[in-house]
Amino acid sequence: MKEVITCLSPQLLPLYHVEDKVVVVVDILRATSSMVTAFAYGAASITPVPTLAECRMLKDQDYITAGERGGLKVDGFDLGNSPFEFMDHKLNGKDLAFTTTNGSQAILSVTSAKAVLLGAFLNLSATADYLNSQSNSVLILCAGWKGKFNIEDTLYAGALASLLQDQNEAEDDATLAAISLYQFASPDLLDFLHKGSHAKRLAGFLNHKDLEFCVQSDKFDLNAVFRDHRLYRI
Amino acid sequence: MKEVITCLSPQLLPLYHVEDKVVVVVDILRATSSMVTAFAYGAASITPVPTLAECRMLKDQDYITAGERGGLKVDGFDLGNSPFEFMDHKLNGKDLAFTTTNGSQAILSVTSAKAVLLGAFLNLSATADYLNSQSNSVLILCAGWKGKFNIEDTLYAGALASLLQDQNEAEDDATLAAISLYQFASPDLLDFLHKGSHAKRLAGFLNHKDLEFCVQSDKFDLNAVFRDHRLYRI
Repeated sequence: MKEVITCLSPQLLPLYHVEDKVVVVVDILRATSSMVTAFAYGAASITPVPTLAECRMLKDQDYITAGERGGLKVDGFDLGNSPFEFMDHKLNGKDLAFTTTNGSQAILSVTSAKAVLLGAFLNLSATADYLNSQSNSVLILCAGWKGKFNIEDTLYAGALASLLQDQNEAEDDATLAAISLYQFASPDLLDFLHKGSHAKRLAGFLNHKDLEFCVQSDKFDLNAVFRDHRLYRI
Repeated sequence: MKEVITCLSPQLLPLYHVEDKVVVVVDILRATSSMVTAFAYGAASITPVPTLAECRMLKDQDYITAGERGGLKVDGFDLGNSPFEFMDHKLNGKDLAFTTTNGSQAILSVTSAKAVLLGAFLNLSATADYLNSQSNSVLILCAGWKGKFNIEDTLYAGALASLLQDQNEAEDDATLAAISLYQFASPDLLDFLHKGSHAKRLAGFLNHKDLEFCVQSDKFDLNAVFRDHRLYRI
């Protein structure tokens, strides 16, 4: 039987086995949402890199550089981390180098998995379909916020796990909690994300337009997998 | 303003400051529920100890030894970790030494806090009243399950934070999620804890009677604090 397991923070990852699993990495605000958008606009590949310096080195090799630190665009980079910056057909056929506080690091932490997929509300059903069509167990890795639990990634975990439930079994409390939380919040995700005090955290670096865009389901029918140091659309 | 923050697993504790906070340690199934019960039945003190060997040493000093490993009673100990074992007036005036997989360790990990309280549904309102009567910020530390998130401790965090909301501010996503999860589950906590797949985990070591008892609110009007290596009723 396939398992569906959720790791609520990269800080908890050492407690999980990833080698036998397909890992879906999610950083709703905003890395994986922006990466999925970039692929929808034709990006050829995205290389997640851990440091600003490595990102700058790739710029010299004609990569488009993108990312943030603490939610803010990086000096000298071509793009920040808002999905709207990636809605540009100039990305078509281009290789991107991407570094963010949480999301890029989370992707790089699970490269020993059977496969690594990008998870975002924007391509939710495509990811669910892919996972339902294959036989490996699934680990949903929430990128979190500086190592801590965050709510938007957990809501995504609940949404994805809900779509896998018919064929799989939620094995752990984190997945069950995520599913319940998603059921609780899904009548109006945007409202839920706004009314809480965590909106303060988001308001620090995020405009309403970004939030509104990133919680839309199924805007793009695509998946992206990590292979040979890069993410590719499949 | 007082903050209310929730740490969903001891594994995440290095990300939090405890020195300026009152920490409520919660291990619903079953350490803190049993400890609170022991105080209700007259225990003079409870010394949480990390190892079986230290617990046995205290037995030689006339302590009553209690605890579990992996949910099972320890060979040679006087008591296990079911709250029903602590409903015994023979505990009256006695010192207990207590070691458990998750709860005792969690208490010992926050001894640098301003104060450490025991949290359980059994004394929920008493703890809320205490916290509302003082001015320090609050960290709710969920003992979790072998380092991972667990649902019953998180539900307690939501229940407690809900009672503190009027006077305080939930500052973090974990507290907000816990409150929402509690709202979702509170119409029938027991049913919620039973129907999920995590019931399988619980069934491994827990009988229904224990679960039913441990999710009852306000059975005991008492608090317990950690001071000089021991917990005392206040």
